[in-house]
Amino acid sequence: MNSLESIFNARSVAVVGASASPEKTGHIILKNIIGGGFQGSVYPVNPKADEILGLKCYPSLSAIPGTLDLAVVVVPARFVPGVIDEGGRRGIKGAVVISGGFGEIGNEALETELKDAARKYGVRLIGPNCQGFNYTPNRLCASWPLVRSRGPIAVVSQSGTVGATMEMWAEQEEIGISAFVALGNKSDVSELDLIEYFAADPNTRVVALYLEGLRDGRGFMEIIRKVGGSIPVVVLKPGKTEKGKKAVQSHTHSIAGRDEIFDGVCRQIGVARAADITELYDFSKALGFMRPPNGNRMLVVTSSGGCGILATDAAEHVGIDVAPLSEETKQRLKEVLPETCVVSNPLDLTGDTDAKRYGTAVETAAAGSGNGAAGSAPAGFDFFLLIFGDPIPGACEVVEDLKRKLCGAGTRGNIGGGFDEGGANTSVGIAVCFLGGGEVEGVEVQKMHRSGIPVFPTPERAVKAMGALLRSKTRTRS
Amino acid sequence: MNSLESIFNARSVAVVGASASPEKTGHIILKNIIGGGFQGSVYPVNPKADEILGLKCYPSLSAIPGTLDLAVVVVPARFVPGVIDEGGRRGIKGAVVISGGFGEIGNEALETELKDAARKYGVRLIGPNCQGFNYTPNRLCASWPLVRSRGPIAVVSQSGTVGATMEMWAEQEEIGISAFVALGNKSDVSELDLIEYFAADPNTRVVALYLEGLRDGRGFMEIIRKVGGSIPVVVLKPGKTEKGKKAVQSHTHSIAGRDEIFDGVCRQIGVARAADITELYDFSKALGFMRPPNGNRMLVVTSSGGCGILATDAAEHVGIDVAPLSEETKQRLKEVLPETCVVSNPLDLTGDTDAKRYGTAVETAAAGSGNGAAGSAPAGFDFFLLIFGDPIPGACEVVEDLKRKLCGAGTRGNIGGGFDEGGANTSVGIAVCFLGGGEVEGVEVQKMHRSGIPVFPTPERAVKAMGALLRSKTRTRS
Repeated sequence: MNSLESIFNARSVAVVGASASPEKTGHIILKNIIGGGFQGSVYPVNPKADEILGLKCYPSLSAIPGTLDLAVVVVPARFVPGVIDEGGRRGIKGAVVISGGFGEIGNEALETELKDAARKYGVRLIGPNCQGFNYTPNRLCASWPLVRSRGPIAVVSQSGTVGATMEMWAEQEEIGISAFVALGNKSDVSELDLIEYFAADPNTRVVALYLEGLRDGRGFMEIIRKVGGSIPVVVLKPGKTEKGKKAVQSHTHSIAGRDEIFDGVCRQIGVARAADITELYDFSKALGFMRPPNGNRMLVVTSSGGCGILATDAAEHVGIDVAPLSEETKQRLKEVLPETCVVSNPLDLTGDTDAKRYGTAVETAAAGSGNGAAGSAPAGFDFFLLIFGDPIPGACEVVEDLKRKLCGAGTRGNIGGGFDEGGANTSVGIAVCFLGGGEVEGVEVQKMHRSGIPVFPTPERAVKAMGALLRSKTRTRS
Repeated sequence: MNSLESIFNARSVAVVGASASPEKTGHIILKNIIGGGFQGSVYPVNPKADEILGLKCYPSLSAIPGTLDLAVVVVPARFVPGVIDEGGRRGIKGAVVISGGFGEIGNEALETELKDAARKYGVRLIGPNCQGFNYTPNRLCASWPLVRSRGPIAVVSQSGTVGATMEMWAEQEEIGISAFVALGNKSDVSELDLIEYFAADPNTRVVALYLEGLRDGRGFMEIIRKVGGSIPVVVLKPGKTEKGKKAVQSHTHSIAGRDEIFDGVCRQIGVARAADITELYDFSKALGFMRPPNGNRMLVVTSSGGCGILATDAAEHVGIDVAPLSEETKQRLKEVLPETCVVSNPLDLTGDTDAKRYGTAVETAAAGSGNGAAGSAPAGFDFFLLIFGDPIPGACEVVEDLKRKLCGAGTRGNIGGGFDEGGANTSVGIAVCFLGGGEVEGVEVQKMHRSGIPVFPTPERAVKAMGALLRSKTRTRS
C-alpha cells in the first residue's frame, strides 16, 4: 500500500469529472485546487472538453503524460471503480472519491468493487461520498470552500459541513488549519490512519475529530495511546440521545454506541471531548497553540469587573481554581497599581487601564517565580487569564512581552510559516480573551493570531478551552 | 421627575469634560455622538478649549444658549455634584455620569451629594461609574464603541463590556440594537425603570439584561409581570458559584443572592435565563425577531446529515421534540424529493441540494395545515429548523417565501427602519442556521439579517435559542 503522504503531498493531481459549469462540484474542486496555489501539475479529465479554467483537458487518466500521484474523482458512482482501475494501472498512488451513491444508499456491491480496484493497485482511497480534503502545507485544496490559511489544526470529519465550518472559522480568525479531511464512507482511509498520519506531520499540532461512530473502538484507543505522547486530540461525537443515535444511523450507518462508555474512554486516554462545534473549535485552538499549564490555579486579570465574574463562575464548572491572592502578592500589587483597581482574584484593573498595566500586574503577581523555571508556579498561579474588555491598544505587544519573560520560550505558533519554538517548557501559561473593544479589538486580535497567540471571544469560552487544555493528558507538541 | 424620554430622545446634549486628546473618554464620547449622526445640538463643555472636533466649546453648562436636555458628564468625581446642580438650575432634564469614584470605591457621601443634586431639580440620572448609553433611533451614541445599526434589542447592563460586546456582535451581524444602557451604580435609574421604558418603546422588541444583583427582587418580579405581556426579557446573571458571588461583591457591591431562587423566579415570570454572553445574545436575537411557536415539535431540514444529528441531540436537552414523520408525510416527501434524500426527522436533503429543495420539503411537510390559521400545527410540526450546511445561493429568498406562505405574515423586523408587521399571528415558526457555506454563506446571511430573519451560526446555538423562545412565556411584541 502507498502511504497517505502521496495524497497530501501529491505533486500531480487529476480531477476526473472536471466541469466547465461553475455550479458543478467538478468545477469548484478544480477552481479551488488552482485558487489554493497548488504548485504541482493539475490535469482536468473530461472527454467532452478541450480546456477548463485555462487548463488543457484530457479524455482519460491514461491520456495524461508523465507521473500522476493523485486522482480526485467526481464522476457518477457507477463509473468510479473503472476510474480507479484505470488510475491504478496508470500508477496513481491515491484517490479521493467525492461522488456519493455507494454503501450510504445501500449500494454495497459497488463500494466493494471500488475497494477491490483500489486494493488491487495499492491505491489509498479517501471517501467515497465525501467533501474531499485540503492540505495547506501543500496548498492543495481538493475540497470546498477554498481555505488557504496555514495553521496547526488538522480537522478530520465524518461531516463535510462540520469540517468546512472549522476551516472557515480558522480562516476568518487567521489562525489557519494544516488539513481538513472528510471521511465519507471510510472505504479505506479511516480516522485511525489519519490520527497516526497527522501525529507524525510536522505541520500539525492538534487533531480535531468529528466522528459519528467508531468502526473500531479498540483500534481508536490503541492509536490514541500510541500517538498520545506526541499530539493532542479533540473529538466531537454526537448521538448522545436516543433520537440522536437514530439520526446517526440514517446518516452514516454508524453505531453511535453508549455515550457514557465513549466519554469514559476519552477521559482515560486523554482525549478532549467537545460538546458542540464551538467547543471543537475552541479546544483545538487552545491545544494547537498552547502547552498545558502545570496546574489548575488561575489568576484572572481584567479591565472588566463583569467579565472577571463570568470567568470565575465558568472556572468552577471546569475544575479551574480561581485561587485567592496571598497577602504578600496583594501588598506588592497595591504598591504598583492605581488605587481604583480591585486587588483580588479576579484582579480588576478597571476600564481606564492601558495595556501596560496588564504587564505590570502579571509581572508583579508572578515575581519570585524564578522566571520560567520548569515546574514552578509563581505566586501560586499556574496560569493567567488576561481579559481585555475595552479598546486597549498595544495589548498584543504586552502579551508577547509577558510570554517572552514568563513562559521561557518565544511565541509559539507562527501562522503560515513554521512554528517558532523556544527551548524551555512553559512554566506559566497565558490565555487571552478580548471583547467589547471596538475597532481596536479587531487590530489587536489580528496581531495576536498572526503571531500565534490564540484569543477567545468571551470569558466563558476562554475558560472552557483552558479546562480542556488542563484535562488533556497528552503534552502538546514542542 | 422628568421621564427617561428626555434622556433617550434628547434634542440637545452637552458633554461636560469634552477633551481634545483622542485617548480621553471625554473625546471619544463627543466623537461618537457626532459620528453616530445625532441630529440635535451638541455642546462640548471645557473651560480651557475654544473648539473640539470642530464644535464651539463652552466654559460651563450655564454658558450654553437655548434649551438643553441632557448632560453627559466625564469630569472627575468631586466636580460632578456641582455640574448636576448647575445643570439642574440651567434646566437639563437628564444626566449621564460616566465618571467613577463614588460609592463603588467607598465614597458614599459624594454619591449621596450627587443624588441630592439630581433629585432637587428632578434631573434623571444614569450612572455614575458607567459606560453611558446608546439609543440608535435618536442616533445618540453617548458611549463607546460607536455602534449605529438599528435593531430590536435593548441591552441594559451592569457591565459596560458585556453591553459593548452585545452591541458589537449585533453591528457585525447587521441585526442592530435599539439601545445600550450601562447601569453603573444605579444612583437613580435602575433596571426596573429601563425595563418599563423599553417595554413601551416602539423601537424595542426585547430587553437583554446583564445584572450582578437585584437591589429590589420583588420590584423585579412586579415589573416583569406588569410588562410581561408586551415584551420578552432575557437575563444573564453571574454569581452562581461561591467565588463568583464574592467577585460580584467586589465589583458592584451587589448581593448575588441564592442562584436557585433567582432561577425559579425567572421560570415563574417567563424570563429567559442565559448561561453566558453567547446565550444572552442568541436568546435576544431569537426573542427580538421571532414569535414563539405554538408547541415544541420541530422538523429539522438540512443539507448536512451531521448537523441534523447535532441539532437532534441538542433539542432533547432543551425540551424540543424532534418528532417522527407521519407515514403520510413521509410518502408525500418521497414523491417530491430525489431518491438520495433521507426522509426522516432530521430530513437530510443531502449536500447536492439547492435552495429550492428546502422550499419543496417544507411546503410538502406543512401541507394540509390550512396555511397559517392560528393555532394549527401542520403535519404535526410547530416549527422548522432549516440548516443550510453548504454554499446554497438563494437560501434567503426561499426562507422569505416560506415565511410569507406559512407564517401568515410578512417578514418581521426590518433593520434600520420600522418593523414591517403582517397581520396574522405566526402559526408555524421557521428558524435558520447557516454554516460551512463559504462566501455564499456571507451573502445569504447578510440578506436574511437585513430583512429581519435571524440566522444562527451552529445547529446547537439555533436549537438553544429556539428553546429559549419556547420557554419564554411572554408573547413577543406584534
